[in-house]
Amino acid sequence: MHTRDQRFARRTERMQGSAIRELLKVTEIPGTISLAGGLPASDIFPVQQVAEATQRILKNNPAQALQYGTTEGYTPLRELIIERMRQKGIHATVDNILIVSGSQQGLDLIAKILVDPNDRLLVEEPTYMGALQAFNPYEPRYIAVRSDDQGIVTEELEAALQQGPKCLYALPNFQNPSGVTYTLERRQQLVELAGRYNVTILEDDPYSELRFEGEHLPSLLALEQQRVQQPPERPYAGNVIQFNTFSKILTPGLRLGWVVAPAEVIRMLVLAKQGTDLHTSTFNQLVAYELMRDGFLESHIPLIRETYRQRCNAMLDALERYFPEGVRWTRPQGGMFLWVTLPEHIDAAQLLSRALEYKIAFVPGAAFHPCGGGQNTMRLSFSSSSPEQIDEGIKRLGSLLKDTL
Amino acid sequence: MHTRDQRFARRTERMQGSAIRELLKVTEIPGTISLAGGLPASDIFPVQQVAEATQRILKNNPAQALQYGTTEGYTPLRELIIERMRQKGIHATVDNILIVSGSQQGLDLIAKILVDPNDRLLVEEPTYMGALQAFNPYEPRYIAVRSDDQGIVTEELEAALQQGPKCLYALPNFQNPSGVTYTLERRQQLVELAGRYNVTILEDDPYSELRFEGEHLPSLLALEQQRVQQPPERPYAGNVIQFNTFSKILTPGLRLGWVVAPAEVIRMLVLAKQGTDLHTSTFNQLVAYELMRDGFLESHIPLIRETYRQRCNAMLDALERYFPEGVRWTRPQGGMFLWVTLPEHIDAAQLLSRALEYKIAFVPGAAFHPCGGGQNTMRLSFSSSSPEQIDEGIKRLGSLLKDTL
Repeated sequence: MHTRDQRFARRTERMQGSAIRELLKVTEIPGTISLAGGLPASDIFPVQQVAEATQRILKNNPAQALQYGTTEGYTPLRELIIERMRQKGIHATVDNILIVSGSQQGLDLIAKILVDPNDRLLVEEPTYMGALQAFNPYEPRYIAVRSDDQGIVTEELEAALQQGPKCLYALPNFQNPSGVTYTLERRQQLVELAGRYNVTILEDDPYSELRFEGEHLPSLLALEQQRVQQPPERPYAGNVIQFNTFSKILTPGLRLGWVVAPAEVIRMLVLAKQGTDLHTSTFNQLVAYELMRDGFLESHIPLIRETYRQRCNAMLDALERYFPEGVRWTRPQGGMFLWVTLPEHIDAAQLLSRALEYKIAFVPGAAFHPCGGGQNTMRLSFSSSSPEQIDEGIKRLGSLLKDTL
Repeated sequence: MHTRDQRFARRTERMQGSAIRELLKVTEIPGTISLAGGLPASDIFPVQQVAEATQRILKNNPAQALQYGTTEGYTPLRELIIERMRQKGIHATVDNILIVSGSQQGLDLIAKILVDPNDRLLVEEPTYMGALQAFNPYEPRYIAVRSDDQGIVTEELEAALQQGPKCLYALPNFQNPSGVTYTLERRQQLVELAGRYNVTILEDDPYSELRFEGEHLPSLLALEQQRVQQPPERPYAGNVIQFNTFSKILTPGLRLGWVVAPAEVIRMLVLAKQGTDLHTSTFNQLVAYELMRDGFLESHIPLIRETYRQRCNAMLDALERYFPEGVRWTRPQGGMFLWVTLPEHIDAAQLLSRALEYKIAFVPGAAFHPCGGGQNTMRLSFSSSSPEQIDEGIKRLGSLLKDTL
């Protein structure tokens, strides 16, 4: 068997998925409070509406719903997505949209068509671990640019862009893992600089609709359309590729997302996707279509926002109450995560093994650092636990931290 | 934009998906009879049973069905798959099974972990075009071994194996595109030879349950388990990796398949899949589980077989009746396709453009030949048309052929 392949071992050695995976197993032990997983709140899943949508589809359109479909995705769904973008002032045609099996697949496919071994990819630090897992098999080298509480530090960006990265991966809203949101100024600088250096921006945007505080800010895609003065009637052809998902606004179990990109990029993504899995589940696409078409999706998102606002506030309150001096954390305006920085001598991975004895789980931050570092950081998720669980979990963690410091 | 990447252009130039894709568009014209697509019969999809299963799941287990799941797949589904294999005399544990988004994804993932540029892959000729599309982005070189009406010509196999291929891709049952089934003797020789040269067999097995004539023959996986005397109680660790799908026995729109492989290979596939799309739709996995658990799946397969038997017979009868002298075709014992060989001077691609004027579509055979050739061949699908449509379609095609010859 040739599978102990040196090259794949190299490709995968930085795939730090196993740490989280092992964690998720431990968190199945009864009584454990997990602030580790990136799970949306299942207690507010729109179960009844999904059930009704499946029945409508199987009554009215079963032969299409259960049959093979085109690789690009269900056209009426792509049209609804475009209409929704238009209402936010972003212009695209169906040729700019590819339906994918979750935005993770979009990240894999874009790397498949863009990234050759040793190509440079510019990322924030910390950045989303799942994106690194998508990119790593294609063997890029990472250039990391520091992030602060206003997002990627654009003062340090130009030097990085001069190293000739093929693209720049950015998560501007309520970032996973840090919970940080780019300011408008940073967004504008980023888009302007990337345009000047002709570096494609991969904008990962799973959380933007989950804002529970402050004002909505334009996406990098929207700013790019302003920069290139995108004509409303023409296909989009700019420098930003955007990755979106239904996982955070509907349910993750359907595995549905979409990519917005210039038509020539979509054509290549379609070829790549065709070889990868032919197409995304027709049935699930029709479910999403049904739930968008009748307006349910729009009416559901405020419930998610309000739920996460309460849970985030519960976590912030508990952090104030239980965490010792010398520990810092971010204050997210939306999304599912916040980020804790411990005193430098504390190793979060070591802390985790003790935390699990206290039946409390989190994700150590090192895995979100593609170029090393971050040992004294951790990601806490507030989306899938009740305020009471969050309070109890942070209390346990705070008491452990006080012992450790 | 760096997407006009030379390397990807090279990777994709052999992706001949576009021919079929363009076809599928043409076949939407009313009155066109398409024998081109590889679509299962949608008129016998188990719509009511899928509807009932979705309702049961959303009533009893909604939080799990709609939430993220593990990359390996839903364990109870994997356990049912193992039990089903056991009844056929094949031994495996859950660590040997990965749920994928259709077997196409299995082909992509295995290439992702195994194939480096310029690695040699041994394939039959003709072979399944979708497998070539899955493999091509990883830039293998193909070694093609001739196939006849008994399957891959094992007399010519040893010379090919001596060229050091990394693996051998085989479709032993009612092959797509040829409809040919390997004899038992060829199967045994293939497994023995591949074992001797330590070349991994990738056994693509989407159609084996669709046998409507003759006796079931053991899969390459079953023969491999005999060869290595697989102990029933231990995880499978042989030389055959098998790709399976629910698309042909349930419905393709759910995008569900599974891979059977040694545990160490599954572990690498899981890492690769995690980066690719995190996991296959939990909801859809639970639907398949429900339909297997209550015995419905087993009771449904005979209906598919009988439907395809009638349609295949209709096609064979029509071929006898309408096709001119000098044209040959295969006589499938199952599956969805048969294969026509025209006189050598006829180019099937040219014939197609005229056939579309007659409102009849098929797939020209050249795309199934990774090393060139096959211009005078075509694939006909009998699965998704009624006997009347098949008769009318073959009549049109026969009359065109008589004009052409």
